[in-house]
Amino acid sequence: MEEVFQYPHLYQFAQSIFQQIGCPEQEANLATRVLLSADLRGIDSHGVARLSGYVRLYEAGRMNTKPAIRKVHESPSTAVVDGDGGLGLVVAPHAMTIAIEKATTAGTGWVAVRNSNHFGIAGYHAMMALPHDMIGLAMTNASPLVAPTFSIERLLGTNPICVAIPAGNEPPFVADFATTTAANGKLEILQRKNLDAPLGWVQTRDGGPSANANEVKEGGALIPLGSDREHGSHKGFCLGAWVDIFSAVLSGANYGPWVPPFVSFLAPPADPVGEGIGHFFGAMRIDAFRSAAEFKKHMDNWITRFRSARTVTGEDRVIIPGDPERESEQTRLQAGIPLNEKVVEDLEALGKKFAVAFR
Amino acid sequence: MEEVFQYPHLYQFAQSIFQQIGCPEQEANLATRVLLSADLRGIDSHGVARLSGYVRLYEAGRMNTKPAIRKVHESPSTAVVDGDGGLGLVVAPHAMTIAIEKATTAGTGWVAVRNSNHFGIAGYHAMMALPHDMIGLAMTNASPLVAPTFSIERLLGTNPICVAIPAGNEPPFVADFATTTAANGKLEILQRKNLDAPLGWVQTRDGGPSANANEVKEGGALIPLGSDREHGSHKGFCLGAWVDIFSAVLSGANYGPWVPPFVSFLAPPADPVGEGIGHFFGAMRIDAFRSAAEFKKHMDNWITRFRSARTVTGEDRVIIPGDPERESEQTRLQAGIPLNEKVVEDLEALGKKFAVAFR
Repeated sequence: MEEVFQYPHLYQFAQSIFQQIGCPEQEANLATRVLLSADLRGIDSHGVARLSGYVRLYEAGRMNTKPAIRKVHESPSTAVVDGDGGLGLVVAPHAMTIAIEKATTAGTGWVAVRNSNHFGIAGYHAMMALPHDMIGLAMTNASPLVAPTFSIERLLGTNPICVAIPAGNEPPFVADFATTTAANGKLEILQRKNLDAPLGWVQTRDGGPSANANEVKEGGALIPLGSDREHGSHKGFCLGAWVDIFSAVLSGANYGPWVPPFVSFLAPPADPVGEGIGHFFGAMRIDAFRSAAEFKKHMDNWITRFRSARTVTGEDRVIIPGDPERESEQTRLQAGIPLNEKVVEDLEALGKKFAVAFR
Repeated sequence: MEEVFQYPHLYQFAQSIFQQIGCPEQEANLATRVLLSADLRGIDSHGVARLSGYVRLYEAGRMNTKPAIRKVHESPSTAVVDGDGGLGLVVAPHAMTIAIEKATTAGTGWVAVRNSNHFGIAGYHAMMALPHDMIGLAMTNASPLVAPTFSIERLLGTNPICVAIPAGNEPPFVADFATTTAANGKLEILQRKNLDAPLGWVQTRDGGPSANANEVKEGGALIPLGSDREHGSHKGFCLGAWVDIFSAVLSGANYGPWVPPFVSFLAPPADPVGEGIGHFFGAMRIDAFRSAAEFKKHMDNWITRFRSARTVTGEDRVIIPGDPERESEQTRLQAGIPLNEKVVEDLEALGKKFAVAFR
């Protein structure tokens, strides 16, 4: 069962909750914009459904709502940012702004972040580069749920990557994806519907094949993009490892199995190897390579050619990365955002607790 | 049938051939080092087996053995290089050297290359960063053999990515992978043995499933990493597209279906959208983020932890990216490089043609 809520309504609610737990007004606004960009873009697992999760992290003393976010190291094209334990939804745009500033002067800007928390969808941050005629990159590590090829231990998060590339008349190319076969959010959808998962998404605690959508909760693991060794899961492992190292080993955050869990009921590892979780951002000024006008003309040509490719029977077009999310955003801004009944109940309880009306 | 040749023997031969087609001595040395690094590292499809292919490109007037490689655009952290139609084996290390120089002063360096040719293995170029305590990245586009998700047209190459990351006592992390389910070289191995391919590597000309290792030659296509939509092939498509755009749209090279084929018997498209093929390189100075000593200590910890993870039954360890290639290099430098009999025949014919003894 789903119920539909208008964006301004959810915005008002989430913004109030962030203020209730101590975020300054401007940061509450920013956190809300980032959080709800997931709901608008159709990535429901990363949107307002997580609001109470952030609150519980705060209540567990694991999130600082008044962080002093600061640069701790820099070069002309790089910086390391310490998020001071702040909300990733606030720390990440701050860091991406620094990457954009660096790119303005040095051509590119690259910022590694430590001591942060879950940052919402990578797409929001990478797309911040687009209005500046820059390419944006964003990645983050996350709670360990993924077993590398041949491993039965969960050592990596779903570690997403987003690359956002401006075009001219065409909408931008925005590839935003978990480096696993399927994102955890897709399993949650199957769990709610009591459906099986396709083979190749998860493995049992012994590394065996499984179609159980609840397998990860029962000690199993998500599988890197590729599904098995024969189909390239070692390449998905490479991608997840790349994200982990850039986000955390470069910045001084926790990596691999030491990444603190997002859920407050699991304690962070007792022997941290860094501070908080890590992110990595990049901004590349197009005209540090060639004229932005020429580049965009060719991006339009690229997108048009790929979108009009001949398709397999039953599919009417090749989907350009970013198409589904943009279409969702257009629809949901008008028609509203559908929320699952469990999410609605959870938000109502949250509203009651903080004396903020949800309806 | 295979025959084993010592590295110095193959080096001498390939170096002479490159000089015979007009490469200056130093460039012939460099091209040979890059080419044979593939044979040493066990990526047989990209090594000396391709030597006659490069020669045929030269004979078809599609490769310049005396290129004037030059920077055509730059910013403090970026450059665009025009390879002047040169051998990618020479153009690529030249461009990577510029990336490393930029990183020395700006913290990072990013170089897009146009008007180049096949550059061998991405790993060689990315690993050039390692002795400088830098992270290296290398990617290239390539002849269109891959159908994006839902497409039956071949619009992308196998577009590899390499990320090379220094460690301390441990060997470096070197992830070098095609962004398809399987590299074309793996199909060639099956073809030589008359074996079927696993489902999910290739599709028929209509986009249907196939186990025919010769499918690509018969109008079919390679499939992006993920194998099918349900298992994330759209993410593999994102990766291949990312490589194509960074390598060619940023630099002014040909992209997508316009990339000229490596094989000389196929003519390049009559309506090019750029010049030659494109590459993209990056170098990131570790101490532009944190002290290299600290970073390496944590990389050692990362590698040790992942390598010692508990494994599925039948596998004794988790493979760290770069392990198999490094082990191959150690073995083959000692024991020699095994070449398939067809490759040996091809090299003998090449030697005869240029009056360079192969034995």
